[in-house]
Amino acid sequence: MARGRTERFITRRLDGRSDRREPDTLIVEEPLSIRLDDVLVATTMRTPGADFELAAGFCHAEGWLDGAAIRRIRYCGEVPPAESEFNVVSVETDGAGPAPAPRLGITSSACGICGTEAIERLAGTLEPLPDVARFEPAVLASVPGRMTALQDLFGTTGAVHAAGVADRSGEPLLVREDIGRHNAVDKVVGRLLLDGGLPATSLCLYVSGRASFEMVQKAWAAGFCALVAVSAPSALAVHTARTARLQLGGFVRNGTIRIYTD
Amino acid sequence: MARGRTERFITRRLDGRSDRREPDTLIVEEPLSIRLDDVLVATTMRTPGADFELAAGFCHAEGWLDGAAIRRIRYCGEVPPAESEFNVVSVETDGAGPAPAPRLGITSSACGICGTEAIERLAGTLEPLPDVARFEPAVLASVPGRMTALQDLFGTTGAVHAAGVADRSGEPLLVREDIGRHNAVDKVVGRLLLDGGLPATSLCLYVSGRASFEMVQKAWAAGFCALVAVSAPSALAVHTARTARLQLGGFVRNGTIRIYTD
Repeated sequence: MARGRTERFITRRLDGRSDRREPDTLIVEEPLSIRLDDVLVATTMRTPGADFELAAGFCHAEGWLDGAAIRRIRYCGEVPPAESEFNVVSVETDGAGPAPAPRLGITSSACGICGTEAIERLAGTLEPLPDVARFEPAVLASVPGRMTALQDLFGTTGAVHAAGVADRSGEPLLVREDIGRHNAVDKVVGRLLLDGGLPATSLCLYVSGRASFEMVQKAWAAGFCALVAVSAPSALAVHTARTARLQLGGFVRNGTIRIYTD
Repeated sequence: MARGRTERFITRRLDGRSDRREPDTLIVEEPLSIRLDDVLVATTMRTPGADFELAAGFCHAEGWLDGAAIRRIRYCGEVPPAESEFNVVSVETDGAGPAPAPRLGITSSACGICGTEAIERLAGTLEPLPDVARFEPAVLASVPGRMTALQDLFGTTGAVHAAGVADRSGEPLLVREDIGRHNAVDKVVGRLLLDGGLPATSLCLYVSGRASFEMVQKAWAAGFCALVAVSAPSALAVHTARTARLQLGGFVRNGTIRIYTD
């Protein structure tokens, strides 16, 4: 398999009038196993690149670091096979972090829960967001367009998710792409974490797709004050954002934006 | 939280000239816990509706049924709280199924694997698809448009994934919607499973988004002979489809389709 972030294929393209073979560039998807202090905690399908950020952001989002500092991140695949060498990342806290526990939020449920309870669990774990000034809606509306210009893989393959960070003027500070929307957010949060930039109190998280419960959860856990999604949020995402006091914008189309929490 | 599949909100809509509050319909997202023979096997965020299909399809896709018949599916939430009553589904095989094992495919890895190994594992578990006649590319190209017309929630909310089943003429036989793309496929496969319609040898699976490795895995596990995605596949999805001998079409735009495996 290709080691890069894209791979070239020859594919057949038909449009009713023609049937021809053409070069095509597809996004690479490979498994990444994440270890935390020598315990395998997850295997996720991801687009290679920013693997350390992804591993750091994932452990943070799952609540496994609990404030512990990351001492070292490294690739630790065994050879042979050489091909998988870069598909195992070890996050090391020198034992300062807690043992990986069930995931933050919903999946630690021993039986059924409802959305209200899922929010209550988050509220019991995460600090309320500080009461900072809201982003101007027009600024939030400008973020997706400014981010898209920076999405290299999207330009090449037309099918990849992105997440990013913008400041109060809507200026993109960071953008990451991945075949998985959760991964893209984890890469962005991981970068901030490794740079000592959490909580991201005065910043806005951007996601290229919809805003689901888990996107709001990740934004809240990282301390963003705003989240802007290209598409619509779910009802639960809105309820969660209201509880978190997270400003939530979405459904950005041709300069129009909807603000779901204010 | 709302029990239905959509919930009404009043949101603020701004477009540079106006700033007004309007009614908005958002997709509902609620946790669903799935039990298999009294063991909690997963909690997933899903859009309520077709919960039994989702639970059946999920257990099938994960390889947990291993051919065992489903005797009964029922809601089993405890009251109080009444609100979560419909957020726990129990799939019962009367002990005929194996104990839930690690997920099919990649996440059972004790350490790192690469894409090639992920495919080899699938090939070691799943039967090769039979050598049946290919779908006409023009028929595959017609499927997304015909499915979209049946996607009720997409029409209402503009932000929901869909999966469906089409026959050799491209006629939609089944369509299911969900906030999660994996859930939508599991609902469709679950319906076929409950109707005795697996393997889906002569049918085409439709997905509204991209074709990732896991989408190909689910299509292969259900025995579909073709998969058509609105957007592009990943490189790994193409390699997996080739191994499975699954016909893979995608990137359907204005009558154009790309065929990635033939």
